[in-house]
Amino acid sequence: MIAFSDIEAAYHVVKPIVHKTPLLTSATLDRHCDNRVFLKAENFQRIGAFKIRGAYNKIASLSSAERNRGVVAHSSGNHAQGVALAASILGVQATIVMPKSAPPNKVAGTKSYGAEVVFCEDSSDDRERVAGLLEKERGLVPVPPYDDDMIIAGQGTVAVEIAQDIRDLAYLFVPVGGGGLIAGNAVAAKSLFPKVKVIGVETEAANDCYQTFRKKEIVRINPPATIADGMRTQSIGKRNFEILMEYVDDVITVSDEHVVDMMKFLIERMKIVVEPTGAVAPAAVYHNVLKLAGKTVCAVISGGNVDPALLKKIL
Amino acid sequence: MIAFSDIEAAYHVVKPIVHKTPLLTSATLDRHCDNRVFLKAENFQRIGAFKIRGAYNKIASLSSAERNRGVVAHSSGNHAQGVALAASILGVQATIVMPKSAPPNKVAGTKSYGAEVVFCEDSSDDRERVAGLLEKERGLVPVPPYDDDMIIAGQGTVAVEIAQDIRDLAYLFVPVGGGGLIAGNAVAAKSLFPKVKVIGVETEAANDCYQTFRKKEIVRINPPATIADGMRTQSIGKRNFEILMEYVDDVITVSDEHVVDMMKFLIERMKIVVEPTGAVAPAAVYHNVLKLAGKTVCAVISGGNVDPALLKKIL
Repeated sequence: MIAFSDIEAAYHVVKPIVHKTPLLTSATLDRHCDNRVFLKAENFQRIGAFKIRGAYNKIASLSSAERNRGVVAHSSGNHAQGVALAASILGVQATIVMPKSAPPNKVAGTKSYGAEVVFCEDSSDDRERVAGLLEKERGLVPVPPYDDDMIIAGQGTVAVEIAQDIRDLAYLFVPVGGGGLIAGNAVAAKSLFPKVKVIGVETEAANDCYQTFRKKEIVRINPPATIADGMRTQSIGKRNFEILMEYVDDVITVSDEHVVDMMKFLIERMKIVVEPTGAVAPAAVYHNVLKLAGKTVCAVISGGNVDPALLKKIL
Repeated sequence: MIAFSDIEAAYHVVKPIVHKTPLLTSATLDRHCDNRVFLKAENFQRIGAFKIRGAYNKIASLSSAERNRGVVAHSSGNHAQGVALAASILGVQATIVMPKSAPPNKVAGTKSYGAEVVFCEDSSDDRERVAGLLEKERGLVPVPPYDDDMIIAGQGTVAVEIAQDIRDLAYLFVPVGGGGLIAGNAVAAKSLFPKVKVIGVETEAANDCYQTFRKKEIVRINPPATIADGMRTQSIGKRNFEILMEYVDDVITVSDEHVVDMMKFLIERMKIVVEPTGAVAPAAVYHNVLKLAGKTVCAVISGGNVDPALLKKIL
């Protein structure tokens, strides 16, 4: 299991290339939920999501022999672009396996960073199969999306930046997909803010981590139907599970309707665009699921890469 | 005519109540136009637009006798909310004359700050008539939208903040409606950045200031059909004209299509929501109307209060 020192090391690696994203506030939001709320705006991060942090930390840690072989990742979303940009900055060739149905703008985004895109069938089984083939046939080095120490340490640098801007924090709300973001930030936050409670947030349909936390074993669910596409992973990873049980205080859920309402609030009142998964942790704060009052809380906005057609539908 | 010292004085007045808005950057934007671009994000300002700066500076300057009488303003847009919030903070009763057709969310926003809303017919003649009546009958003090020294000085505090964050600036692009924002910021910028060129930007249909600058006299146009609702004023003010001729280096135009493209770029790439008028100055930079290269430039985003229905249409 990683320690805070791994995240400090990751921070020195990623600091020169990531944006330090702002902590946003809103008097209306504070009044609505009766707490002092900070939103960590990773929608303003490079590639539009936190994923660049872990991907860069991972690829930067490879030996020069490994870098020469090139890297492979499978993703239809932000991890693809994170790996593509990180590899490009480090002069490493990246191959990204994407489902045939991936949105054209995400395919174009990934290619724009110089990555080769290999298409596969839409199931996650086929994604893994094709990525595995490329790993063997071409000798490519895999960059996993979340179940990896360097990835987890990289994602944990979000909390390092939060602690540069606020001294005291009672609650940190983090969205959970495969568990990379919450694992890194739970380890970091518990060192940086000794009294903080770290809360994972999922949508109701994508509640595998909610069940996992209560059963104390990894629960795998069927592919969930949720608007939060970053939460369509069926279970969290093994390393992520170990950190979850040791460092996370609770896992809660919000409805897809609350996510949509939150996206609208962020657009209309705070003038920012977030993707559905990015609105999940703010929604838990806005609707005050934990019934807190007078606390300093922070919710992580994981990203802002929403499909314009979906955004239109939401409006 | 106001001097920079008036803007410095205004800055001390408004500093405790306005947000210091960020200067946003985008590597994609820089690459696209081959300049180093900063966007001053007044869409993140209180009430969602710069108008709070001038309104607060004006109302704070009133005598206690005037404050006791209350203030009146006419506006269908951001000035209404700016006056309403500024008056509310200062404990002054505000009456806002709004056209019957004003969007319900703007009426609700204005009322939410405790202002009384009086409806009038949709023509700007009727707005002025009703506001004039209230001024006489109730003894209310008018808060003009732009042709006023205290309003101009307040709006000029935008440039004071810009100068806190960047040392050198070659070009400052400012959208022009009635001329309050550009007048204050032209005076301020020429003191803060001695070599800066200050450029006004309008949409092609709303080009009264473009014509005014060239004719060297105030040109009044018919109500322009432009997506940039903040530019539907028919002419700039007298005080604004005087400053324009002395401090502004050029006035240029962009098409409504470029404004819509810019709004999309800001949503999709920079994850921020701006109103059409707020995208006008960035559009001039993005499309590099002046054919600059390698310059440090800043464009002011005037606000973010876009009607969700219009935003939907744009997407």
